[in-house]
Amino acid sequence: MRVGIDVGGTKTDAVAVTDDGTVVGHIRRPTAWGAAGVVDTIVDAVAALSTRTGTGAFTSVGIGMPGQVVPGSTVVSHALNLGIERFDLARAVAPRLGLPVRIENDVKAAAVGAHALEGGSTDLAYLNLGTGVAAGIVVDGRVHRGGRGTAGEVGHVSIDPHGPVCRCGGRGCIEALAGGAAVAERWGRGGMLPVRDVFDAADAGDPVARGLRADVARAVAAAVRLLVLTVDVDAVVVGGGLTALGDRLLADVREELRAGAAASDFLRSLALADRVRLLAPGSPAAALGAAIIGGQAAPEEVPARG
Amino acid sequence: MRVGIDVGGTKTDAVAVTDDGTVVGHIRRPTAWGAAGVVDTIVDAVAALSTRTGTGAFTSVGIGMPGQVVPGSTVVSHALNLGIERFDLARAVAPRLGLPVRIENDVKAAAVGAHALEGGSTDLAYLNLGTGVAAGIVVDGRVHRGGRGTAGEVGHVSIDPHGPVCRCGGRGCIEALAGGAAVAERWGRGGMLPVRDVFDAADAGDPVARGLRADVARAVAAAVRLLVLTVDVDAVVVGGGLTALGDRLLADVREELRAGAAASDFLRSLALADRVRLLAPGSPAAALGAAIIGGQAAPEEVPARG
Repeated sequence: MRVGIDVGGTKTDAVAVTDDGTVVGHIRRPTAWGAAGVVDTIVDAVAALSTRTGTGAFTSVGIGMPGQVVPGSTVVSHALNLGIERFDLARAVAPRLGLPVRIENDVKAAAVGAHALEGGSTDLAYLNLGTGVAAGIVVDGRVHRGGRGTAGEVGHVSIDPHGPVCRCGGRGCIEALAGGAAVAERWGRGGMLPVRDVFDAADAGDPVARGLRADVARAVAAAVRLLVLTVDVDAVVVGGGLTALGDRLLADVREELRAGAAASDFLRSLALADRVRLLAPGSPAAALGAAIIGGQAAPEEVPARG
Repeated sequence: MRVGIDVGGTKTDAVAVTDDGTVVGHIRRPTAWGAAGVVDTIVDAVAALSTRTGTGAFTSVGIGMPGQVVPGSTVVSHALNLGIERFDLARAVAPRLGLPVRIENDVKAAAVGAHALEGGSTDLAYLNLGTGVAAGIVVDGRVHRGGRGTAGEVGHVSIDPHGPVCRCGGRGCIEALAGGAAVAERWGRGGMLPVRDVFDAADAGDPVARGLRADVARAVAAAVRLLVLTVDVDAVVVGGGLTALGDRLLADVREELRAGAAASDFLRSLALADRVRLLAPGSPAAALGAAIIGGQAAPEEVPARG
C-alpha cells in the first residue's frame, strides 16, 4: 500500500492507495506553518491514515508540494506559501516514517493523479487555476518536465499585448487574466472568495465584474488551446481553487472555445470544447498522483533510514 | 547508407547519410508537379545520389513531405503546393527503388535533422518560418506528435486579440503575423521576395513596413517563448524560407526576447535569447532528418517490393 500526500497552503490531503491505484483511505488535515510544521503535518497524516485504513503496511510515500522540486532531488524550494525557501523535505521525513519518500511539485503530482483518474491511457494536461496558473503535462504515462523544469508554465504566455501587467513582469499573461491573485487584485474589493464574488457580480450585471469574468474565460480557453496546439494532449483537466466555481466556469470556457472554433475550420476540427473538463470537486488528484510517483521511487534514491 | 529526401514546393533535396549520421552526398533538383511528378523526382534524385556518391548500396529511404502524414502510414495528404490531395507515396516509390521507404511531414523531419545537427543530446523545437508557421518538437530524441498529430501547430496560437485575421479564421495568430503568405498579403505590393522587401523598406524608414517587420519579430519571439514555457525545450532552431533574412531576422527576434526579459525576472531566468538560433543557410536538415527516420522504419512496415 502506498501513501500519497498533497501539502497545500491551508490543508493537507493524504490518501492510501493500493498497488493497482485504488484509493482505499483519504484524510484531510490543516497544514502547519514552516518546514518543521510541514514535516509534523505529514508524519501525523500518515499515522492518521494508518488508523483509518487499519494497516501500517505502507511501502512508499510520495509528497506533492507547492514550489520547485528539482527532478530526482529530495529538496523543495520557493514554497513561499508554506514559509519554506529551501528545505530537504524527503530527508527530514523519511527517517521519521521509516519509508522511502519521493517529492514532486504539486501541479505535476496532480497531473499524474488526473491521468490515473482518466484511466491512464490518454496524453493529458492538468491545468491548475489557483493563486497562479500552471499546467502539468503527462505524455506516454510520464510527466514531461523539460530541461529546466519549466514545462507547463503556460501562465506566463502572453495572449494580449494590451492586457494587464503580470506579477512576472510581462503583460497580458494568462495568469494576469485568470490567476486567482490577479483577479482579486483587479477586482480590488477584498472578500474571502474574490473570484466567486466577481462571478456573482457579473451575473448581477456589474460591468467591471463582467469584464473580469470574460477575461478569465478568455485566458483559460487560450491555455487549453495552446496546450493542444503545442503538445496535442487528448484532454485538458482543469483543477485548483477556481474549479469550486464548477459549471459556471466550465460553461464560460466552453463557450469561449466554441466561439473561437466557429470562425475556424482548423480549430473546430480540434474539438477543444469536448476535450476540456473539470476535476471532480474534492478529488484528491494531487495526493493520488503523489502516491503513484512515490511508488516509482528507486529505493536507492531516497533511502529510508528510520 | 541511408537516403533522405526533402520534397519542397519548388526544389527537392536528397542526401546520402552514413549509419552514424554523416552526410556524404547532397544534391538538389527542381520538384515536378503532382503525384507522378513527385515520384519521378524522388526516383531520379536517388539515382543521381548514387552516381554522386559512387555507390548504390542504399539500405533505406526517408522522405519529408509538406502536408499531413498519419504516423506509421505510407500516405501523404493535403500537400496542396505539390498538387497532391491524398496519395500513397511510399507504396508508389518503394517498388521503383527496391528499398524500404518511410515518409514524414517535412517540418517534423527537419526537427529530427536539426536535432542531429545540434549533436543529438538536447530537447529541441524546430520552428519553421515559411509560407506558414509550424514547429516540430523533439523530446528524448523522438518527434513528439500528440494524439492527433497537431503537436507543434504553434502558428495558430493567438497572441493578440486585435491582430490581423489568420487564414485559419482566428485573429492575431502567430502565423497571421509571421507567416510569409500573411506578411506578403499585408504588404500587398507583390514582388518575388515580399518579406525581404518589407525588411528593406523598414530599413529605409517606411512606417507600414516597420510595423510589419516588428510584428514578425514579436510573433517569432512569442513562438519561442511559448515553446519553452510549454514544452521547455533547450533550444529553438529556426528554419524555413524566412531564414534567408539571416542575422536581420535573428537580431530582431533576440531584441524582442530581451525586451520581454528586461521586465521579468522569470523570463530573464529562461535565457530565451540564448536558446534561439537559425539553421545554417542551405542546411539540408529536413533531408537529413528524413534519412534518420527512414533508417528507423520497421522493415515489415513498408516493405520493398521492387
